[in-house]
Amino acid sequence: MTTSPRSIRKKTGNFLEDFRSGQILRHKGGKTITDGLFATFSDFSMSTNPLGKNARVARAHGFDGLVCSPGLVMLVCFSQTVEDVSENARANLEYIDMRFGAPVYVGDTIEVETKVLGVRTSASKPNLGIVHVQSTARKNVGAADEAIVMTWQRKVQVYKDDVDAEVESFQIEPDEVACELWLPEYRADADYKSMAHLFRPDAYFEDLEPDTRIEHSRGRTVTDEHIHLTGILDNTSQVHCNQHMIDLDPSQYLGGELIIFGGIPFVLCLGLSGPDVGDNALGDVVYRTGRHTAPLQKGDTVFAATEILGKRDYPGRPDLGIVSTRLLGHKFVREDGAGHEDAPPGWKKVPIFELEREIAVKRRSHYA
Amino acid sequence: MTTSPRSIRKKTGNFLEDFRSGQILRHKGGKTITDGLFATFSDFSMSTNPLGKNARVARAHGFDGLVCSPGLVMLVCFSQTVEDVSENARANLEYIDMRFGAPVYVGDTIEVETKVLGVRTSASKPNLGIVHVQSTARKNVGAADEAIVMTWQRKVQVYKDDVDAEVESFQIEPDEVACELWLPEYRADADYKSMAHLFRPDAYFEDLEPDTRIEHSRGRTVTDEHIHLTGILDNTSQVHCNQHMIDLDPSQYLGGELIIFGGIPFVLCLGLSGPDVGDNALGDVVYRTGRHTAPLQKGDTVFAATEILGKRDYPGRPDLGIVSTRLLGHKFVREDGAGHEDAPPGWKKVPIFELEREIAVKRRSHYA
Amino acid sequence: MTTSPRSIRKKTGNFLEDFRSGQILRHKGGKTITDGLFATFSDFSMSTNPLGKNARVARAHGFDGLVCSPGLVMLVCFSQTVEDVSENARANLEYIDMRFGAPVYVGDTIEVETKVLGVRTSASKPNLGIVHVQSTARKNVGAADEAIVMTWQRKVQVYKDDVDAEVESFQIEPDEVACELWLPEYRADADYKSMAHLFRPDAYFEDLEPDTRIEHSRGRTVTDEHIHLTGILDNTSQVHCNQHMIDLDPSQYLGGELIIFGGIPFVLCLGLSGPDVGDNALGDVVYRTGRHTAPLQKGDTVFAATEILGKRDYPGRPDLGIVSTRLLGHKFVREDGAGHEDAPPGWKKVPIFELEREIAVKRRSHYA
Repeated sequence: MTTSPRSIRKKTGNFLEDFRSGQILRHKGGKTITDGLFATFSDFSMSTNPLGKNARVARAHGFDGLVCSPGLVMLVCFSQTVEDVSENARANLEYIDMRFGAPVYVGDTIEVETKVLGVRTSASKPNLGIVHVQSTARKNVGAADEAIVMTWQRKVQVYKDDVDAEVESFQIEPDEVACELWLPEYRADADYKSMAHLFRPDAYFEDLEPDTRIEHSRGRTVTDEHIHLTGILDNTSQVHCNQHMIDLDPSQYLGGELIIFGGIPFVLCLGLSGPDVGDNALGDVVYRTGRHTAPLQKGDTVFAATEILGKRDYPGRPDLGIVSTRLLGHKFVREDGAGHEDAPPGWKKVPIFELEREIAVKRRSHYA
Repeated sequence: MTTSPRSIRKKTGNFLEDFRSGQILRHKGGKTITDGLFATFSDFSMSTNPLGKNARVARAHGFDGLVCSPGLVMLVCFSQTVEDVSENARANLEYIDMRFGAPVYVGDTIEVETKVLGVRTSASKPNLGIVHVQSTARKNVGAADEAIVMTWQRKVQVYKDDVDAEVESFQIEPDEVACELWLPEYRADADYKSMAHLFRPDAYFEDLEPDTRIEHSRGRTVTDEHIHLTGILDNTSQVHCNQHMIDLDPSQYLGGELIIFGGIPFVLCLGLSGPDVGDNALGDVVYRTGRHTAPLQKGDTVFAATEILGKRDYPGRPDLGIVSTRLLGHKFVREDGAGHEDAPPGWKKVPIFELEREIAVKRRSHYA
Repeated sequence: MTTSPRSIRKKTGNFLEDFRSGQILRHKGGKTITDGLFATFSDFSMSTNPLGKNARVARAHGFDGLVCSPGLVMLVCFSQTVEDVSENARANLEYIDMRFGAPVYVGDTIEVETKVLGVRTSASKPNLGIVHVQSTARKNVGAADEAIVMTWQRKVQVYKDDVDAEVESFQIEPDEVACELWLPEYRADADYKSMAHLFRPDAYFEDLEPDTRIEHSRGRTVTDEHIHLTGILDNTSQVHCNQHMIDLDPSQYLGGELIIFGGIPFVLCLGLSGPDVGDNALGDVVYRTGRHTAPLQKGDTVFAATEILGKRDYPGRPDLGIVSTRLLGHKFVREDGAGHEDAPPGWKKVPIFELEREIAVKRRSHYA
């Protein structure tokens, strides 16, 4: 071209002033769960539940095939909302009432929509406010097996585009969303016992005792693989993948480094807890609340612990029980001195994640 | 073995003196597009076109399922030619008349052959010459759906094996290859509008104005993941994956580091342009010419811009139009001073890639 | 919770004192080969055999589809045994009589069990002993196509949990396991020759001469991708993925760095040998013995060579022959001086792997 063309740069994502009370955001794209995405994430997370590893076992339990772990479902559904809700966010503050519905299989296509429930401005931080949303993810829209697979609320701290924009606070009630964990029928004639050796023998409903804290024995170091992992989820937030943006203003970001997408430690903590509490779960019922308490960066090693808070019968399902837990993630950072609680000399334990989590766990009496 | 065996080392790839006028290179291997390869690359590239994300949408538009992006097709087809054409190359100089044909789906098997069109020697660089080839990629050879999926020419600078070898220049005409973009029929009775919310609302044919330059807002930092990405494409070029070879003679290579396979920034630029110009494309028609203008190395962040050069009707398809663009990739490198055009203080903008690209874009009037 | 819960940490894996003579360990989980796992590993390894690349070719040769390479089969089967056998190991000492059976395809589910053959304690290292086991991997247990896919023995050096535990040595004979390489029938009417251009022309049975050492020309640098690769195999050994554990006691580990899972250089060496010896193999018959002779760490570049030890007819298969080889892996480390054998000045060649390997190789007379 001989003359300089008109140059434009489109805005992506919404800013604080863009959210309207009750507004419905129908997220773009949608995402079909490929076998490749399944392999990458199910196994990345160190999850151990055979329902996501062994198709023979999954089918014998009444599923159509390998089942996506709750962590994978969460990653895919949540990432669909990033561009519209949190591409211009400073931090994700809280997960609320995250519930699972229909099982998700390879080949299912996920589409998500979000309702804006609230905006709260801050006198002390005029360029930021808190956005409260409720999102619902469906699979196979328009097909015979269309179903809700997940619903959740979250609160997220979002920047203004124009610092001087006038923004009014508002808050409405969340919708009632019919989303309850789908469970395969228990079949008295099924030979579950012949497959029991594939599951942990010591992580049935009977084994999980309230007022116990289980320190999960494994850890997992996260590398800059997180950029790729976040990308293949179609999560477009730039703080996870654009180092140049961070180099331009490193003091705005922790240590001048890319911040790992919160979904990564979320599913890693779920996975690390697997051998002790998740291996005999038929599904995760609800995450009542959860939050990230410190960021994660490449090179950090993620550890997890689970507090067993309580347990109760699963209505109508004598083969199952519900276990209430608190899943806690942490990492260690170097710090001089020997006096840090729960940490080896020279190290400090840093909590990174917590999640109130209820799980539907098989009873040994019925399965082993 | 008690005695020392005879030791041999086989030559891989062709050198300048091996190419013959009109020679046909039938490339080894072939490659079936697995779901794993699809997941890794479609999403790696930050592409956003729902035809490669959402199987429901792809089928509703008349495709058989998720469609491989032009970038993925290019990566697979091009990589098949590397061993025979460019394993012993210094640089890939130019892409010419790269055209797309049949759509590529997971499960399709690609096989490629190449015709040698020219060799040009250089008086000033007696150990190097330019090889000009024309390659054509077919899918599902011998099956009912056998089809050409891509054809292209390229020029590549290749080393001699024997510096003293006599090589004569030659040049013949390219073949006429019948390779035209396959497009699904527009069905007046299809309910495209019910899916319009899954596509960008502001990137239809009507929205793309000539003489506009769009700076795409996202960037993507590339890590040493590039070694793995290049490997899973069966691209065998050693400058992308053999650090020891580079350590032996670091001054021969940029900064003594592995060079990222050009296909990586190629598809990243395509992907980064997605939200603004690619999201409503039914396909890429032709890349008339393209070249890499600077190498990419791990840690670099890729950005892209698109200049809209012109637009015209798509013959016989009132629902579509053809948009001519120039896709430009760049990165930023640190450099003291504040006077560098188009770059923040302390940085210099380095163009890395350019591609003359024509796209078949949907009209809002017919789809939304 | 208001009171501090009881804290527990479960032991994972067996320690030296846990192994019993003749004990059968039925490994947990099992693993369905997803298309994603296939893509990641088949291609990661730089393998070139078209049977694992090109579904058209694999079917024409009598397979059901893309065939998992022996390296991928080994990685999946071996990793299933890690938690029970070697999660608490110091080193894997030897692979013995590793034989392949039925072919493994995407969608097959692998389950493995292991018999404890021996324990040998050491007077000089009271906290360690050698465990000798025999493992057998089956696919599709309970289905019509249930079959043994691999059987092998290994010796591994395992830690005691309680250094003062009394452990008695024992040794029993291995079981006879019927596991012989499944081969597709040779069909005189099949048009193998029309596909011969997809295979190397110079790596048929006729081409491989005993008393030859082939230095494979390619190398592959391994990055910290190894953490992810090992994780997606469900290999839970902490020395491959828990940097914090290593930071707590770096002198216990080489250079204070994560050690790369031995399966990674194992399959890389197989892959690097592909163009010269593996490309025309219908399968790997047996690995009589193998061992790792030095560890691999991120940044190392893997090279391989093959010594052709002998060749013989394949009983009942005039189209094939068996080639006995020794596969040797090595890397180079910097070391001052110029006198190191087989290495460039300033470098030293370090052997990392050796494997006595027999391959079933096609004859040119029948296939090309």
